[in-house]
Amino acid sequence: MSRQQRQALDELLRHGPLDLGGDVAEQRAVFSEMMASIPLPSDVSTTVGELGGVPVVTVETPASDPATVILYLHGGAYAIGSAADAVGLAAEIVRRTEARAVCVDYRLAPEHPFPAPVDDALAVYRALLDDGLPSSAIAFVGESAGGGLVAATLVAAKDAGLPRPASAAVFSPWADLSVSGASVVSKAAVDPALTPEGLRRRARDYLRDTDPTTPHASPVFADLTGLPPLLVQVGSHEILLDDAVRLAARAAECDVRVDLQVWSQVPHVFQGFAVMLDEGAEALDAAAAFTRAHWTDVTEGAEAPEAVG
Amino acid sequence: MSRQQRQALDELLRHGPLDLGGDVAEQRAVFSEMMASIPLPSDVSTTVGELGGVPVVTVETPASDPATVILYLHGGAYAIGSAADAVGLAAEIVRRTEARAVCVDYRLAPEHPFPAPVDDALAVYRALLDDGLPSSAIAFVGESAGGGLVAATLVAAKDAGLPRPASAAVFSPWADLSVSGASVVSKAAVDPALTPEGLRRRARDYLRDTDPTTPHASPVFADLTGLPPLLVQVGSHEILLDDAVRLAARAAECDVRVDLQVWSQVPHVFQGFAVMLDEGAEALDAAAAFTRAHWTDVTEGAEAPEAVG
Repeated sequence: MSRQQRQALDELLRHGPLDLGGDVAEQRAVFSEMMASIPLPSDVSTTVGELGGVPVVTVETPASDPATVILYLHGGAYAIGSAADAVGLAAEIVRRTEARAVCVDYRLAPEHPFPAPVDDALAVYRALLDDGLPSSAIAFVGESAGGGLVAATLVAAKDAGLPRPASAAVFSPWADLSVSGASVVSKAAVDPALTPEGLRRRARDYLRDTDPTTPHASPVFADLTGLPPLLVQVGSHEILLDDAVRLAARAAECDVRVDLQVWSQVPHVFQGFAVMLDEGAEALDAAAAFTRAHWTDVTEGAEAPEAVG
Repeated sequence: MSRQQRQALDELLRHGPLDLGGDVAEQRAVFSEMMASIPLPSDVSTTVGELGGVPVVTVETPASDPATVILYLHGGAYAIGSAADAVGLAAEIVRRTEARAVCVDYRLAPEHPFPAPVDDALAVYRALLDDGLPSSAIAFVGESAGGGLVAATLVAAKDAGLPRPASAAVFSPWADLSVSGASVVSKAAVDPALTPEGLRRRARDYLRDTDPTTPHASPVFADLTGLPPLLVQVGSHEILLDDAVRLAARAAECDVRVDLQVWSQVPHVFQGFAVMLDEGAEALDAAAAFTRAHWTDVTEGAEAPEAVG
C-alpha cells in the first residue's frame, strides 16, 4: 500500500491549509488544529509544568520508565507550534522507548528571536541534570526546526561545559538558516509542504540581524566534535533534504557516530503521519531502537568529553 | 574496551605491510596472506566454481537458505584481492543472513582495466537470474573498491534493463575514481590504511584513458534513480569518508531509500576486524539486519522499475 499512501499524503499536504511562511497568528492556529486532529492513544497522559523557568508538557504512559527522559523539541520554523502541539508525535516516541518525554515550550519568533529557543532548550536540559538525572539517561529528539534546535542545543551544551546526553534523533532537521542547500531548488517541485520563500521569511523573523551561518542557529556550520550518537531521518521529497545530509556529513567529519536514514518519496516530518503511512511507523521504530540502544551504551558514555562546568 | 581496540587496530594498520598503492604483485601476496590469517569458522564451507563465465567462490554454512544469495564483491583498489581473499568477511555476512554468498573473482587492473570488473559482476548477476533466482532473492554486498563496484554494477544492471536486486550494502565504498572528496585531505593524517597517492596510482591503472567521472567507474556521479534500498557504512578515520557520504547523498537526491552509518574513529573496512573491534561486529549485525529486512520487503519489490530487457 505504500505508493498509494504516499500519494494520498502528498495530496493532503498540497491542499491543506498550513503555510509555514504565512501569517504567524493564523498559521499557529492552523498548525494547532492540525496537530490536535491526530488522536492521542488512551494510555498517554500529559502534564503541564515548568523546568528551569521554561514551560514544558510531560508526556508519558503507564509503561514509562521514570529513569529515562526524552527532551523533545517541536517543529514550526521557530514561529509556529508548541509543546502541546507536539504531544502526538512525542507520544509515538514515548510508547516505543518506554521513557517519558519532556516537550519544551521554547519561546517563538518573531516575538522572541534567536537565541531564545536555544537558551530555553538548554535551560530545560540543565534543569534535568540539576534534578539528578544522569546525562546518559537523557536523549534529545526533535523535528524540523526542533531538529535543528536539537543539534544547536547539543553544541551550546558542549560550549557550556555540560555533559552530553546519551543520543539525539532528529526528523527532517532545519539546520541551515541561510537556506542554501541544493535541494532547496532541486526538490522544490516535489515538496508538498515547504517552500524556499516560506523558510526565508521565517529565517528573517528568527535571526533578525544575526548571521545565518552562526553555529548556534545553523548547526551544519558548527563544530560538532564531541556530540553524542546522532540519528538523522529525512524524506527525499523535501527541500530540507540537504540540511539532513549536510548535518550528517558534518557530524561524520567531526568523528561523531551518526546514522542518516533517507526514506524515498516521502515529505517533511513524515513520521507525523505514521497512522496513514507505513514509512512513518518504520522510521519511528528505527528512531526508538536507536534511542534505546544508546541509553545502555555505557562504553560510549564513558568516553564522552569530561564536563568542565 | 572500544577505545583500546581502536588504538590497537590503528597501530596494527600503520605498521602493517599492506600498501594499496605499492607494487601489484607484491601487494597481492601481502593482502592474500593478511586475509588468510583471519580464521574461518569450522561451519563455513567454500566451493570454487564459475557463473556466467566468471570464476566465483561460493561461501555457505549448514544454515544457509538456498533461496537467498549474496553477490559479494571484494576490495583491493581494483588491482589487489580475490574472491578467495574475501571469504572471511563474506562468511561473517553469510552467518548473519543465513544466505550463501557468491564471491566474484572479477578481473583486475592493470592487466584488465575498466570496465572489466563491471562486466564480470554484471555477468554473474545475469547468470544468477538466468538460473531462475528472482532478483528479490539476491542482495549485493561489497567493500572498498568492491563497494563502488556494487553501486556501478547496479547502475549497469539498470542500464541493461535487468530487474534490481533486493538491496545493496557497501562498506567504505571507493565510489569516486577522481579522488576528489574533501576527506582525501582532511582525513589523511588519521587514516592508518589508505593514502591519496596510493588511490591515485590505482585509479590510473584501472581507468587508463577513461574519464574518472564516468558513472560506471565513479557512481557518485551516476544517475542512481531506481536503485534498490542501499546501506552505506564507513569509518570516520578514512580518506574515503566523503565517497560514502556523497554516494548516500546522491542516492537520496535520486529518491533511493538509503541509510548511511558512520562509526567514529575507525578505519577503512573496519568490519574486517570484527574479531578485535566491537564496532566491526555491530556494523556487520546492522548490515545483515538491513539485508534480511529487504529480502522480505515485497511491497518495495513490487514497486521496482519494470525490466525492459
